[in-house]
Amino acid sequence: MDKLKNSSLVDTAWGRKSTHVPVWLMRQAGRYLPAYRKVREKYDFLTMIHEPELVAEITLQPLREFPLDAAILFSDILVIPEAAGTGLGFSESGPYLEKPLKVQENMKGFLEMPPDVVKERLDYVYRGIRHTKDALNADVPLIGFAGSPFTLFVYMMEGSSSKTWSSVKTMMYHNPAMVHAALDKITDMVTIYLREKIQAGVDAVQIFDSWAGILSVPAYFEFSWVYMEKIIRNLEKENIPVFAFLRNFHSNLDKIAQSGANVISLDWGIDLKDARSVMGERITLQGNLDPGILYGSASEISLSATHILQNAGERHIFNLGHGIYPDTPVDAVKVLVDTVHHFTRS
Amino acid sequence: MDKLKNSSLVDTAWGRKSTHVPVWLMRQAGRYLPAYRKVREKYDFLTMIHEPELVAEITLQPLREFPLDAAILFSDILVIPEAAGTGLGFSESGPYLEKPLKVQENMKGFLEMPPDVVKERLDYVYRGIRHTKDALNADVPLIGFAGSPFTLFVYMMEGSSSKTWSSVKTMMYHNPAMVHAALDKITDMVTIYLREKIQAGVDAVQIFDSWAGILSVPAYFEFSWVYMEKIIRNLEKENIPVFAFLRNFHSNLDKIAQSGANVISLDWGIDLKDARSVMGERITLQGNLDPGILYGSASEISLSATHILQNAGERHIFNLGHGIYPDTPVDAVKVLVDTVHHFTRS
Repeated sequence: MDKLKNSSLVDTAWGRKSTHVPVWLMRQAGRYLPAYRKVREKYDFLTMIHEPELVAEITLQPLREFPLDAAILFSDILVIPEAAGTGLGFSESGPYLEKPLKVQENMKGFLEMPPDVVKERLDYVYRGIRHTKDALNADVPLIGFAGSPFTLFVYMMEGSSSKTWSSVKTMMYHNPAMVHAALDKITDMVTIYLREKIQAGVDAVQIFDSWAGILSVPAYFEFSWVYMEKIIRNLEKENIPVFAFLRNFHSNLDKIAQSGANVISLDWGIDLKDARSVMGERITLQGNLDPGILYGSASEISLSATHILQNAGERHIFNLGHGIYPDTPVDAVKVLVDTVHHFTRS
Repeated sequence: MDKLKNSSLVDTAWGRKSTHVPVWLMRQAGRYLPAYRKVREKYDFLTMIHEPELVAEITLQPLREFPLDAAILFSDILVIPEAAGTGLGFSESGPYLEKPLKVQENMKGFLEMPPDVVKERLDYVYRGIRHTKDALNADVPLIGFAGSPFTLFVYMMEGSSSKTWSSVKTMMYHNPAMVHAALDKITDMVTIYLREKIQAGVDAVQIFDSWAGILSVPAYFEFSWVYMEKIIRNLEKENIPVFAFLRNFHSNLDKIAQSGANVISLDWGIDLKDARSVMGERITLQGNLDPGILYGSASEISLSATHILQNAGERHIFNLGHGIYPDTPVDAVKVLVDTVHHFTRS
């Protein structure tokens, strides 16, 4: 493996000195970029995440626009459900799974499935990584990612977006043993998947717990965080930094800080100063600008970003609190990245 | 005004001794009740919130099913925008406003509007209250409510549901003065509206800040909480308890506790034990069961409710963390209300 020319993200994740605060953006390879929309005109989304050349191209697009400190592999967390046989389609209201686990026979089939189906069936992802690493030429680290077991379970149960998550919660609170069996299986799949990604060359991994906020605090630790911790432990020997992103969850962060993750990524619902005071100095925090501030004026973006930079403490990777919105002005991202790079702690 | 036969809710809100922990449920008059669905077959939603007889009937329905400790007026927070000329319609994906303030001339008209339009135009609400109070016969208190200025502003700007709140945030971060002018106007309207409701007979009021979670912490205090506080101060002399509900907001609760509100209602994203330790003993906490737990088994409902009861401290009104879901089994609500009423602090 070539030595990274810009290792600020990895250094900060490990708590080593870095020349500057690194910055990348969730969904930085996406629809707000004209270059992305041009590719999207020619190919459907599934083709875009399947073809290694397209994956590399799209992953690199934001780096040509902005001096970002990391690339994140262009992919989707739903590739694991798809590999596990749920099917994956797209409608106007978003992605959906054709065979959700709320249907008993689908669940039965899933629980009998060997977790290493994610090796062969997701080979296209690993090939995409190798292509992307070649194209990146060790300029910046490449981040790979997966959904958390609970987040994937929510999608796999409901099949499409839900306002009440009634299938998930009905099963959680009637048949928790079956939920835990499914979460165990998904945990194994995510572990194998992330190991394969690391094998293929990613320099860091982020686990997205996008549905953390739908659970009460005790339920979160019982049904989600325990599986996040298991994956983090499973990856300990891989010697690359592990990032955990929690959406809409700001409680018991002292416990969250003890997980062994190198980086905890938070949304905008908590001031990083408060998070830092609960979590201590021995963890890297990532976040947490409201992506809606990128609709604002340059001075507002700069002011809000600086507020975060001043409050996050030494070990900080700048990011949004959530994925960048498709209608974000490209110039706003320029202002943001410049603000972060020009910041010097006083 | 007749003396309430069951004053447990009001007593607990003021921090006086109560015989038991009071319980009511957000959206307790709603679609999960067969009696509600029967009325809904005959009338559209707007008729149901307009006709005083229907308002009284629907408000009382849940009290016939369960020994709840309060009634909440059947109405909608969008009656203020409607009275302010935005129009109000219903589509398959929910309510929408026909003349959103993101259109410049609509905003102009709104800013010039006298705030007391909510007196005459919302007279049907006040008549509904008088009918309902008669029907209630002083059995339990009647809660009136309004949306918070920021929450109403979000609806009024966007006009329909949004995933990015781009109109709101573009204006907030380009033209904050105009946003504050609109929020000032809405604050005046909400104040007048709640005073009229109190005049008509409600025994408590709750202000719903349903969109609290879309703001970063500093933005929340600048654009939302300051207006909540203003309304709370405006209502001080009315001598009835004021409840504030914050959805998806769990930060700086020490500051929230200082507002003068009698009751802070929280969603399930924070353990009430933690909220209590930050907020102190001199405020009443309301909440905060995940409504999804009502999909669960009787023993799970009972266990989860008891956990909350044991952690909330002395001044506690039991409620859900959010409105009850339309497909909630009626029996689950029975189990919940019984659990709360049988609970004795050890």
